[in-house]
Amino acid sequence: MRVVLKYGGSSVATPEKIKNIAEYIIRLKKERYDEIVVVASAMGKTTDELIEKASVFSANPDQRELDSLLSTGEQQTIAFLAIALIGMGQDAISLTGYQARVETTGIHTKSKIKNIGAEKIERYLSEGKIVLVAGFQGINEEGDITTLGRGGSDTSAVALAAILRCECRIYTDVDGIYSVDPRVYKDAKPLSHISYEEMMEMSLLGAGVMETRAVEIGKKYGVIIYVGKSLSESGGTYIMEKGYGLEEKLITGISITKEILVAGISNIKYSSETIAKIFQITTDAGININMITQNISKDSILELSFSVAVNEKYLLDQAVAKLKRDLPEATISFAENLGMISVVGVGMANSTGVASRFFSALSKAGVNFYQVTTSEISISCSIDRENINKAVEVTAKAFNL
Amino acid sequence: MRVVLKYGGSSVATPEKIKNIAEYIIRLKKERYDEIVVVASAMGKTTDELIEKASVFSANPDQRELDSLLSTGEQQTIAFLAIALIGMGQDAISLTGYQARVETTGIHTKSKIKNIGAEKIERYLSEGKIVLVAGFQGINEEGDITTLGRGGSDTSAVALAAILRCECRIYTDVDGIYSVDPRVYKDAKPLSHISYEEMMEMSLLGAGVMETRAVEIGKKYGVIIYVGKSLSESGGTYIMEKGYGLEEKLITGISITKEILVAGISNIKYSSETIAKIFQITTDAGININMITQNISKDSILELSFSVAVNEKYLLDQAVAKLKRDLPEATISFAENLGMISVVGVGMANSTGVASRFFSALSKAGVNFYQVTTSEISISCSIDRENINKAVEVTAKAFNL
Repeated sequence: MRVVLKYGGSSVATPEKIKNIAEYIIRLKKERYDEIVVVASAMGKTTDELIEKASVFSANPDQRELDSLLSTGEQQTIAFLAIALIGMGQDAISLTGYQARVETTGIHTKSKIKNIGAEKIERYLSEGKIVLVAGFQGINEEGDITTLGRGGSDTSAVALAAILRCECRIYTDVDGIYSVDPRVYKDAKPLSHISYEEMMEMSLLGAGVMETRAVEIGKKYGVIIYVGKSLSESGGTYIMEKGYGLEEKLITGISITKEILVAGISNIKYSSETIAKIFQITTDAGININMITQNISKDSILELSFSVAVNEKYLLDQAVAKLKRDLPEATISFAENLGMISVVGVGMANSTGVASRFFSALSKAGVNFYQVTTSEISISCSIDRENINKAVEVTAKAFNL
Repeated sequence: MRVVLKYGGSSVATPEKIKNIAEYIIRLKKERYDEIVVVASAMGKTTDELIEKASVFSANPDQRELDSLLSTGEQQTIAFLAIALIGMGQDAISLTGYQARVETTGIHTKSKIKNIGAEKIERYLSEGKIVLVAGFQGINEEGDITTLGRGGSDTSAVALAAILRCECRIYTDVDGIYSVDPRVYKDAKPLSHISYEEMMEMSLLGAGVMETRAVEIGKKYGVIIYVGKSLSESGGTYIMEKGYGLEEKLITGISITKEILVAGISNIKYSSETIAKIFQITTDAGININMITQNISKDSILELSFSVAVNEKYLLDQAVAKLKRDLPEATISFAENLGMISVVGVGMANSTGVASRFFSALSKAGVNFYQVTTSEISISCSIDRENINKAVEVTAKAFNL
């Protein structure tokens, strides 16, 4: 049987850990999978350290060059892992994004995988080699090295599993997907299964375990994704089509984003062109927007607000400067000290009263909520940061999580 | 005017040095060269550190994987340099060996450049960009990353200059080529010019400033090579065709290799097949042989010895193990504590008495010499390591260097 295994940065943080993984993979190959592809991230904090070093040369490093720099982290990990495996007598070969033909499109530091040419990987697998592929990186039409953004190694792994038509097993330092972050809510329960849709909502809403795009690709190509602890196959959560043994709960989980910034734009005349322009500017700045709320007053005055992660403040500042130039009449405001809480569940789509149960739980606990957005399977709202733990607790109780 | 500039590891050892080089190159582009290609090595001791790290995973790391690992060093340097240049307002772009289409052939860790596709570099130059190329690395027919061995960045730089039809300027921490190593002979004089042939002999014989293959390529394609101090264009030595203002001295220089190992093979019947087999084994082991001396006794018994650099002892051990298996009747001996001294000069070819003047200088000073080899333009001999300084001094005096 064939499989793609993915090890994140903390799982390969030290030479000792890499050696343990090498030994473990050799055992897996003997006992469980005859064809193994491994995707690995850069060791520990390497990516952050390289970004730090680049900042010595420029406050705003060129993104193409940053991608070329960052890609060396994963290249080193897979070379070390290959050297370890071969040293232990197991034939193996490492492939950079270019060598594995991971073709990408889009802007540097946030590229998307367009295609993967699997011929080379198939050939090496058929020769009995363990194939190690650098996560997080690819190559664009220009032949430039690109990276896929934070969590991009998950996307690499699932995309490879889609092309190679096999399961993708993602190893981390947690033992699966929890309905609520166990660091925030001590009674949280791990899930044995979760549907792609719920996992996407939870990722988008800040659950942080899996990259959303990875789950999206998994859903599109029907890749079964397992998330579990390194060096173990027990426990863990399977992400798959709903119905697959999935208990139909009203709410599967609660997601939180501890720190968000909310930008408000008001005092301008509503027009769809203006709104399109505003979001073109945020897109050009490369901002990931979490939540959008929009209201039109009776005088056709637009009230728009959107939230972004705190670590994208520098991008937001660039966008705001441009917004002020292009829409001089607008009033632009910021709200800080906010967080976001969301309830997620496929059950919600066919059920009523989830919103009222959620809001009344918050309200009874004295938690004010501001911007509210909803999707088919989730409801999110911004709350004061200091209320996050309390909000999680009362919501978890309200839905019996 | 177009130029290739090459900066070695010690010239780019710190962020500060990289920034200084960036500023300096921008000035060169304004004042002297409108099209600049820069070849850079890995920062400081990076390559050695990566080799050290790899050895944690295997005593004998797989060579393909080692190449992929080591290539990240140069990739990081050129990304940093590009980030610095772009941050200073100078358009620039970095290219890995693959991106610059440096095609290689031969074994891993010691590959040779077969071709460089210059179209991409030409295009970026015509757009006004400074083009930064990772030295020391290329890509083979398989698409595997290869490296060119120690000093390979010199080869990358001269090969690029050959393809781009321009001068190659190699910046180091010495102010040119000396007739004798100034650390050994304090009265040594720097040369303003030296011929390719003499430079090759001196490199082969251990002068250590320039990689021999680089000079060879320079000679083949008529690339004028300048060797001088970083951040300066004054002083320095031009390596070019003889006749180009070159004073015709009898001896241009003295080369030394401080530490060599001499392996002796004796007690076997002479046959050309046996000798061919011996050197096939050393070649397979990847050994660079400095000096071969061979003698056939009157009973057709072969006496053969060859010397290698001390840092190739581990390769020699592999070869000796194989020799013992394949030629069980042979006696194999080692001599350690030896060094090598050579006199080099194109004048030698048309002159007599160089050998006798050299040997008598050594002999008068009480320096024993053992293996002796000669070429058209050099004479080398092994001597006791403790006599090296004395030997250099008396030889330099004997030839008025």
